[in-house]
Amino acid sequence: MSDREDHYPTRLTTPRAALPRNEPIVHARNQYRWDGPLDEVALSRYERDGFLWFNGFFSRDITEPFFEELREMARDEALMDSERVIKDPHSGAIRSVFGMHELSARFDRLTRDPRILGMVRQLLGSEVYIHQSRINDKFGFQGSGFDWHSDFETWHAEDGMPRMRAVSASLMLTNNNEFNGPLMLIPGSHRLFVPCVGETPAMNWQDSLKAQTIGVPDESALARLAEHGGIQAPKGPAGSLLLFECNTLHASNENMSPWPRSNLFFVYNSVDNLLEEPFAAPMRRPEFLAARETTAALTMHDAFPELAGQGVAPLQ
Amino acid sequence: MSDREDHYPTRLTTPRAALPRNEPIVHARNQYRWDGPLDEVALSRYERDGFLWFNGFFSRDITEPFFEELREMARDEALMDSERVIKDPHSGAIRSVFGMHELSARFDRLTRDPRILGMVRQLLGSEVYIHQSRINDKFGFQGSGFDWHSDFETWHAEDGMPRMRAVSASLMLTNNNEFNGPLMLIPGSHRLFVPCVGETPAMNWQDSLKAQTIGVPDESALARLAEHGGIQAPKGPAGSLLLFECNTLHASNENMSPWPRSNLFFVYNSVDNLLEEPFAAPMRRPEFLAARETTAALTMHDAFPELAGQGVAPLQ
Repeated sequence: MSDREDHYPTRLTTPRAALPRNEPIVHARNQYRWDGPLDEVALSRYERDGFLWFNGFFSRDITEPFFEELREMARDEALMDSERVIKDPHSGAIRSVFGMHELSARFDRLTRDPRILGMVRQLLGSEVYIHQSRINDKFGFQGSGFDWHSDFETWHAEDGMPRMRAVSASLMLTNNNEFNGPLMLIPGSHRLFVPCVGETPAMNWQDSLKAQTIGVPDESALARLAEHGGIQAPKGPAGSLLLFECNTLHASNENMSPWPRSNLFFVYNSVDNLLEEPFAAPMRRPEFLAARETTAALTMHDAFPELAGQGVAPLQ
Repeated sequence: MSDREDHYPTRLTTPRAALPRNEPIVHARNQYRWDGPLDEVALSRYERDGFLWFNGFFSRDITEPFFEELREMARDEALMDSERVIKDPHSGAIRSVFGMHELSARFDRLTRDPRILGMVRQLLGSEVYIHQSRINDKFGFQGSGFDWHSDFETWHAEDGMPRMRAVSASLMLTNNNEFNGPLMLIPGSHRLFVPCVGETPAMNWQDSLKAQTIGVPDESALARLAEHGGIQAPKGPAGSLLLFECNTLHASNENMSPWPRSNLFFVYNSVDNLLEEPFAAPMRRPEFLAARETTAALTMHDAFPELAGQGVAPLQ
C-alpha cells in the first residue's frame, strides 16, 4: 500500500506540523437528496464546533431499558471473558463493551432511529453504516479518564479509514455533570489534523483501549487548539445526545463523584468511506473495533413510535 | 499518650462509622471581642457548607508579584533539592513548596492581611498562627489530582492537632476553571468525622504529599456525604479566595487543560489548639509541615494599603 495517497500521515518518527482538513465538514449542504432534520443554524454550528449537543433528546423511558440489558450481559460469563469487554486498568471494573449493536436488538434499533439517522445522513451526505459501537461505563470514584485524542487519527492509522467522513453519536444513559467525568471537546479542532509521533506496535489496541499512549497529539498542538477554541463539556440529563465529528479532539477526566456515568457510543461511517488497509499500523484491528464485513447501508427503524413527529433542537 | 482523650480515632484496623463533630464550627459567634468582617449570612453559610468563596477578593496587582518570587525560588537549587519541595509523581514538575510564609516576606504579610486575619479570628474565636503554608502548582496537562480527604484527619493523626479549630485559606494565583483541576468540596462534610482504616507508616508524609493512600475515607462514606451535600467546585479569576474549615472533605481532579493552576495555601490554627503528640502516627512530621516552634499569635500587617476600607463579600 506504499504508493497509496495518504492525506493524513501519522504515527511518525519525527514531529510534523498540523495539516488542514482535506474534505468538507458537512458533506451534503443544500443537497435535496440528503436533506434532514438539522436546520442551517445547527449545520453551521457543527461546521464551526465539530459537535452538536441535544439536551434531553430521549426521555428516561427510552434509556432505562438499556440498563436491564447491561445487567443481563454482565451475567454472561463467556461474553465478560471475551476481548469485546475492556476492563478498567485500575479497578478491573467493566469499562467498555464493544459491538453493542450486534449484541443487542434494542441498541441496533437505536442506531436506526429516524431522527438520529436523518441527521447523520445529512452530515455525511450518503448512506451510512455502523463502524463501531460500544457502551462506556465509569463507576463512582472509579472510572479513569481518557487523554486528548482524535478518533479519526486512530481509525485512519489502525483501521484504514481513508477520509474524515464519519460521525460519532454518544447517548447518555446517566446524568452527565461536572464531577462524573463528562466528555470534553475542543471546539474547532476538527478543522486540523494533528500528526502524532510514535510507531504503532502490533496489537496496539489491547493497550490503547485502556489507556492510549500512541496516537496522542503533543501538548503544544493541544495547547494551541484549546487556546483558540476553548474546551467544552456538555452536561445534561440521561437521554441527552452528542453528535461529534470523527476528528474533533476529545478527552475525559476521572469520575471523582459517587455518581456513575454510562453512555452508548456508536459511530456512523459513510458507505463511500469504507475501510482500506491500515495507513500506519502493522495489521488490521478486529472486526468488533472496526467493521469491514457489515457495511450495508442502515435502514430506518421507528423503534420509538411515541417520538414520531418530534422535532430536533440542538441546544448548544 | 495512651490515656489521652481522643475524640477522633482514625487510622484504625477495622472500619468504624462516622462520628459527630465535637466542637463548634464558628467558634465565637456573637462575641464582641472576636467580631470581624463576616456578617451573619456569611457565618451561617460557613456553618452549613464548611467553606466561603470570595470571587476576585484581590486584584491581579496583588497576585502577580507572587509569580516573580516563585520564578526566583525555582532558580534556587538548594531549595529545589530540599524536602520542602514536592514534585509531581508523574512529570517530576514542582507540585508544592512548603513553608512559604517563612521563605517569602510577601507571603508572610499576606497571611496577616487585616481582612483575612479578621475573618479567621472571627471563625476561630481566638488569636491564630500559621500551622502550615505552601504553594500548589498544576501545570497544563500535567497536574495530577488529589483524592478526597479531610486535612484535619491528617493533622490530628500525624501532627497531634487536638480539635477542629483551624481554617485553611487558598488564594488563587491563576484563573480557576472547570478544566484546570479546581478544588472540589463536599458541603456539610465538616460536620462529621470519618475515621479511616489503615495504620500510618513511619515517614508517611514522604509519600502522602504526592498521592495520599493512608487517611482516605472509604467510598461508602464519601458517597453518602456527596449524595447529601452534593459537590461544589468554586471557580473564578486569579485573586479569588477560598476559606474552608479544616475538616471539610475536598479533592481535585487532573488538569486536563493547557491552563496552569496555581494557588497559595495557608492554614490558620487557633493558639488554643496547639499541636500535641500525634494521635495515630509513630512520629511527628517535620516543622515545615506542622509548625510547633512558631506559634505566636499573628499581628495584622496592612501590606496592601490600597485595599484599606474595602468590605468583604462572599459570593457563595
